[in-house]
Amino acid sequence: MTQSPESGPDFSKSELMPAIAQDAATGEVLMMAYMNAESYAETVETGRAVYYSRSRNKLWRKGEESGNVQKVHAIYLDCDRDTILLKVDQIGGAACHEGYKSCFFRQVTPEGLEVIAERVFDPSDVYGKK
Amino acid sequence: MTQSPESGPDFSKSELMPAIAQDAATGEVLMMAYMNAESYAETVETGRAVYYSRSRNKLWRKGEESGNVQKVHAIYLDCDRDTILLKVDQIGGAACHEGYKSCFFRQVTPEGLEVIAERVFDPSDVYGKK
Repeated sequence: MTQSPESGPDFSKSELMPAIAQDAATGEVLMMAYMNAESYAETVETGRAVYYSRSRNKLWRKGEESGNVQKVHAIYLDCDRDTILLKVDQIGGAACHEGYKSCFFRQVTPEGLEVIAERVFDPSDVYGKK
Repeated sequence: MTQSPESGPDFSKSELMPAIAQDAATGEVLMMAYMNAESYAETVETGRAVYYSRSRNKLWRKGEESGNVQKVHAIYLDCDRDTILLKVDQIGGAACHEGYKSCFFRQVTPEGLEVIAERVFDPSDVYGKK
């Protein structure tokens, strides 16, 4: 599939671009990670979210270890084409490696951070005990 | 209000942190911008979204020119405390300077980018003709 450069994110601005994953059914924001051109291309091609891990310096095929892949329903770009929004179906019900549906499971309150979600899984069951 | 460092974003990792603004009522993702420690503190204190403009290198009080401020209903942090999620009430109905409710008004399709939203306002009416 040949497309003009304007049909995708503008990676000429930045090699890494924020990508927001939102639950396609509920609209809940699940996580934010980064994509490079290669991970974006693989996401489009496979229909599964592929990010770029800044800590590991390599492609991060979300769910490759846990099995909790993200099936991509739709991809949107912002006005500057430098942020990506994915609507996804989160297999396993939890996007966060800490076992919560969303990585945004803590709310800022005057008393400090408050956990506002229930754990979907125990991380040690999914990733193995350390 | 004195809080432990763990009660807010971890700006020791990065001076600028992505902040996602989500419509508090509908869950629609409106935009993503960046915050530094100062803009985050002012957001918490005033209850209005204040970002940091990377292009202008200064605080960006969202709506300071257009009047379309964002009233902040709730703030969440992700598992690494390096991404911020705001639930906001977008005054004026449009977060995007191009006049759309959301900056993510274009969907990636096999035929290219497709505009999937209606304009709420004409940018030239709000920002003046150039």
